[in-house]
Amino acid sequence: MEATLSAPPLSAFLRRVPPLRRLIPLSLPPLLIASRRLRVSSCAHGSDGGRIVAKPSSELRRGISEARENSSKGEDEKLLSLRRIFSRPDVGIDAYIVPSQDAHQSEFIAECFMRRAFLTGFTGSAGTAVVTKDKAALWTDGRYFLQAEKELTRDWILMRSGTRGVPTASEWLNDILPPGARIGIDPFLFSFDAAEELKQEISKKNHELILLKEFNLVDEIWNDSRPDPPSKPTRVHDIKYAGADVVSKLSYLRSHLGEYGCTAIVVSMLDEVAWLLNMRGSDVPHSPVFYGYLVVELDRATLFVDSKKVTKEVLNHLTNARVELKPYESILPEIESLALKSAKLWLDTSSVNAAIVSVFRSACKRYSMQLNNNSTNQSIHHGGPDALYQVSPVALAKAVKNNAEIEGMKNAHLRDAAASVEFWCWLEKEIESNVTLTEVDVADALLEFRQKQEGFIETSFDTISGYGANGAIIHYRPIPGDCSLVENKNLFLLDSGAQYVDGTTDITRTVHFGEPSKWQKECFTRVLQGHIAIDEAVFPERTPGFVLDVLARSSLWKVGLDYRHGTGHGVGAALNVHEGPQSISFRFGNLTALQKGMIVSNEPGYYEDRSFGIRIENLLLVTEANVPNAYGGIEYLGFEKLTFVPIQTKVVELSLMSPGEIKWLNDYHAQVWEKVSPLLNGEALDWLWKNTRPI
Amino acid sequence: MEATLSAPPLSAFLRRVPPLRRLIPLSLPPLLIASRRLRVSSCAHGSDGGRIVAKPSSELRRGISEARENSSKGEDEKLLSLRRIFSRPDVGIDAYIVPSQDAHQSEFIAECFMRRAFLTGFTGSAGTAVVTKDKAALWTDGRYFLQAEKELTRDWILMRSGTRGVPTASEWLNDILPPGARIGIDPFLFSFDAAEELKQEISKKNHELILLKEFNLVDEIWNDSRPDPPSKPTRVHDIKYAGADVVSKLSYLRSHLGEYGCTAIVVSMLDEVAWLLNMRGSDVPHSPVFYGYLVVELDRATLFVDSKKVTKEVLNHLTNARVELKPYESILPEIESLALKSAKLWLDTSSVNAAIVSVFRSACKRYSMQLNNNSTNQSIHHGGPDALYQVSPVALAKAVKNNAEIEGMKNAHLRDAAASVEFWCWLEKEIESNVTLTEVDVADALLEFRQKQEGFIETSFDTISGYGANGAIIHYRPIPGDCSLVENKNLFLLDSGAQYVDGTTDITRTVHFGEPSKWQKECFTRVLQGHIAIDEAVFPERTPGFVLDVLARSSLWKVGLDYRHGTGHGVGAALNVHEGPQSISFRFGNLTALQKGMIVSNEPGYYEDRSFGIRIENLLLVTEANVPNAYGGIEYLGFEKLTFVPIQTKVVELSLMSPGEIKWLNDYHAQVWEKVSPLLNGEALDWLWKNTRPI
Repeated sequence: MEATLSAPPLSAFLRRVPPLRRLIPLSLPPLLIASRRLRVSSCAHGSDGGRIVAKPSSELRRGISEARENSSKGEDEKLLSLRRIFSRPDVGIDAYIVPSQDAHQSEFIAECFMRRAFLTGFTGSAGTAVVTKDKAALWTDGRYFLQAEKELTRDWILMRSGTRGVPTASEWLNDILPPGARIGIDPFLFSFDAAEELKQEISKKNHELILLKEFNLVDEIWNDSRPDPPSKPTRVHDIKYAGADVVSKLSYLRSHLGEYGCTAIVVSMLDEVAWLLNMRGSDVPHSPVFYGYLVVELDRATLFVDSKKVTKEVLNHLTNARVELKPYESILPEIESLALKSAKLWLDTSSVNAAIVSVFRSACKRYSMQLNNNSTNQSIHHGGPDALYQVSPVALAKAVKNNAEIEGMKNAHLRDAAASVEFWCWLEKEIESNVTLTEVDVADALLEFRQKQEGFIETSFDTISGYGANGAIIHYRPIPGDCSLVENKNLFLLDSGAQYVDGTTDITRTVHFGEPSKWQKECFTRVLQGHIAIDEAVFPERTPGFVLDVLARSSLWKVGLDYRHGTGHGVGAALNVHEGPQSISFRFGNLTALQKGMIVSNEPGYYEDRSFGIRIENLLLVTEANVPNAYGGIEYLGFEKLTFVPIQTKVVELSLMSPGEIKWLNDYHAQVWEKVSPLLNGEALDWLWKNTRPI
Repeated sequence: MEATLSAPPLSAFLRRVPPLRRLIPLSLPPLLIASRRLRVSSCAHGSDGGRIVAKPSSELRRGISEARENSSKGEDEKLLSLRRIFSRPDVGIDAYIVPSQDAHQSEFIAECFMRRAFLTGFTGSAGTAVVTKDKAALWTDGRYFLQAEKELTRDWILMRSGTRGVPTASEWLNDILPPGARIGIDPFLFSFDAAEELKQEISKKNHELILLKEFNLVDEIWNDSRPDPPSKPTRVHDIKYAGADVVSKLSYLRSHLGEYGCTAIVVSMLDEVAWLLNMRGSDVPHSPVFYGYLVVELDRATLFVDSKKVTKEVLNHLTNARVELKPYESILPEIESLALKSAKLWLDTSSVNAAIVSVFRSACKRYSMQLNNNSTNQSIHHGGPDALYQVSPVALAKAVKNNAEIEGMKNAHLRDAAASVEFWCWLEKEIESNVTLTEVDVADALLEFRQKQEGFIETSFDTISGYGANGAIIHYRPIPGDCSLVENKNLFLLDSGAQYVDGTTDITRTVHFGEPSKWQKECFTRVLQGHIAIDEAVFPERTPGFVLDVLARSSLWKVGLDYRHGTGHGVGAALNVHEGPQSISFRFGNLTALQKGMIVSNEPGYYEDRSFGIRIENLLLVTEANVPNAYGGIEYLGFEKLTFVPIQTKVVELSLMSPGEIKWLNDYHAQVWEKVSPLLNGEALDWLWKNTRPI
């Protein structure tokens, strides 16, 4: 059967050929939000208080000195230009909020969407800028206080989030603006839930939230210097790695929609779009995704994407799956037309942006008003468009990996392990030879070793290469020219990962190239004991991840130690290194059960400020546990390791380890040798042999 | 300063001298329930799905054969008489619901309140009877299916709760009654929250919930055979055990009320009343409480109690604390007058009964209507009566023990341990000598040993004495003439406790008088490992109990085993053996943090249907942990044991135990010897010596 493909337009990244040129104040009835998705756990890297935030691309960080220079002369201009737009008749606002996000709530975003960084000069991954007619303030968290102080000019007030007495952005706006002010946002950059929360907050002072969906004010002043939108071609994710074809994925999704009485869904998370369509892209660093929305109806599916990215191969692939193409920027008209078609639309308001949701809601409202005008019979209403506000069903389907995805992940992890071993062998020798290496040099070398592996694409996040005190900074990223040397006098923490064509990796090892102190050994051993306890856990089906979190902390708690991040996050299969809905965290709000086929990280840690940091991370696959009983007639689950890289035994305090824990370590190293040695030779093979001997 | 005492009335237990002789349909606006208290964890005895239920008194169980006889001839009469009342003009209902509760949501209730047992003939602790004009049904859970089948006549439909396809009582009523029926309840026997939930459920079929607060329909047909209400004297709980006087407790409570803008609170949980007033009673089995309500206002406090129970000593005690007395049955008029006084009333709607709450709400409504009639100035409204629906602040204050309470608990536990040791020494000898003993004989003997201890009052719950397969019935209670012998061929589980003048105990030991099987040893050892893991846990302040629950199960889960009850419940100090708000449970709804001074049980188990049961239970005191660090500048907490009775080492499979676990067991036994040996002599001392030797 042939699928009809709508002709892709020529100009592709003009996001908003506006369907309705007007401002929508967000003053609709309260939502029926059935459940909020917990996006990802707050693990050691890339997350911020349980919520994924944008990270700077490595280029951006490398260009930090330029940014600082720019900011020292140009920021005033930017603020002036921005404020000039406030009074335009099609704008008319008293303040404008510029968040870090893109339109898809992505963790990593394309540079052309780094509007907050452009406006403020502050290049940290997390931050929100608020500009009023006479003030400008930037909120960021403890990780970035120093960086923000350096990068912001004095026209900006730095708001240290989480510090006593520092107001939130909405508290500040409520404080400084006279009642009844108009506060503008770009509704594409806020999830509907986030916009709704903001609206509630500022309504305390009778401020109105203005959704300026026709244009982004920062883009208006960015002009020529704005980087082009990403336009690299997408590719088909081979069925041998995907394991299920698009037709069956869509068919599963449709049957799910049907169960809930829905006729359509808007999929806006980029990894969900990529997963459903077995497509990959390279629009953002670290994640093999591309900018697009997918609308799945019961009888058709439409991908909203820049047609430049669609190669012939991809076009064929989509045609075969009966997926139509439309321009990325035509998503809002499509939402309108869904309402006209009386769609029952599934909307995950925790991820779908406020522009989409509010357009649908307005259209529903108009529909209902027309009906009221045309008829006195109230009962025909139920034929009209309607929305189901519920967490996207794609997230869970994507989290439970099929056999091909698992196979791909296992293979990618073995190649990644080989690269790791070669790297550690090399690094150890370099340090022994007193070669001067910075944290960045080390990260770059690791990248080179990985690049030699088959199917390597890129790093799955910015490498955290932290020597000594830098290891204690959980979200540390070394900056060239401004980072430590890696030496043999303290612990060295290395958290890194890669995207391969068949899988995604994420591993942390902490080593000492000299003599660790007794205290460092005790801390390392307690972290390792937590790691082992999670690894060995067996638990009944339907157990949420947070139940296991205490196992990772118990040994640390025994001596009054702890760590301030979650223990495990979900990982995509050749997709995002952070994905929901599962997690292992001390935050017990996430009730998602760990299920067979899910992948989670196991990364307890310990961080001593201004001294050292320890983290030991493997990825684990949830599997059926091999248990002799099945009390309650249910399944018991456990973990299978995906990561096979030696753990440095020099740092282990044997006297603290139980015989069972020692056995675990020896068994693990035996497995590492067995699985990884066939991929190695020469010095690296010798190194592996030495580093997998039982203790 | 002299306190005014209102003269106690002569006739004291006529609960309802009705202030307003009319029926209140419960059709008020929805509640603002800030938080629901989780009463107690669902531990091994006495609780039912996380919710405490009435237990039959031992007398009632002993009289089970009589009950059965009665039921075989009289129940028809009872149903007929009950239904006859349905059509009375002051009643006018289509169905009547008879729950197990008393008016205070007590775990143990006085026999005169066992209306459901009287009406149905079913004497189990948990059950709800529903009678319509032509049908009668009883809901109970899996523990009681067999017993209910035996005890109910064929006029009753047995509803096996939790079984597939069995409707809830409200679903059943919605199913069998024509729409718009009137369903009556005694609002004293439902917490307001429970009544509200019921009302919501039956409103789906447009049924109306009728609160018949003037009389209980079962009482009307019970007549002369109804046992007298308890009227034994109350006593003063010595300040040396209470640790804080009534004046300071009331003053603390008042400052708490003040913080929330409240002027009064109704305390209705019997243990909260007893704790606040440093009084004890003997109105119900196992709990040293008495029937009463306490109303605390900012400038006065009134105890609503049968004056017959107030001795001269108690009267003096109350007078000194400026607590006034009023008749128990005058609580509703008092609630009315609180509304007239414009009280801001703190009501814990999860425990305060629907009669009290609905009377206050009606009075508030009348007040507000009068104001509307008398004045057009809306602003004076805020001077009117109002309610704060929030969990009682007394529960938490009571749960955190002061030094005197802790001291009393420790002393009571040592005497209880001495009695236990004497008992086990005796029992072991009896079994060796092949003396025939039933489970009841054994429980009776244990009682005799305890009775010899100073300050002993009574058992703190019905002793669970389960040999072999009976040990697998979590809520097992042996019935004289219908129970097993205790022999040396299987495991014997004994869960018991006592009320002493200075403390409350609760202990379970599982032993084998012959040769345990390898499998039994493995199961016992895994339960013991869970017990040890909880005992040794160290955790940061603000950790809710459920976080620790996994520690108790981990070793069982490793081989696919588990148990279907919580791990720990709170325990009162010379008060109820089950108290909230803390718990250690796999149910993660209870966010109450474990706090220094709280007492919890530690009682993991394993139960093999039709074979054997294992449970090992000590009581633990939450204390500051002695840790060398304090990461995050916070306190780390741990447990101190209160229970000191040997754990049978014969049943321990040493090969499964870690060195640390073996050390725990040896250390524990060394402590047991040190603490309990001074209280013993002769054979018991020898037995203790033998049973505390290191392994």
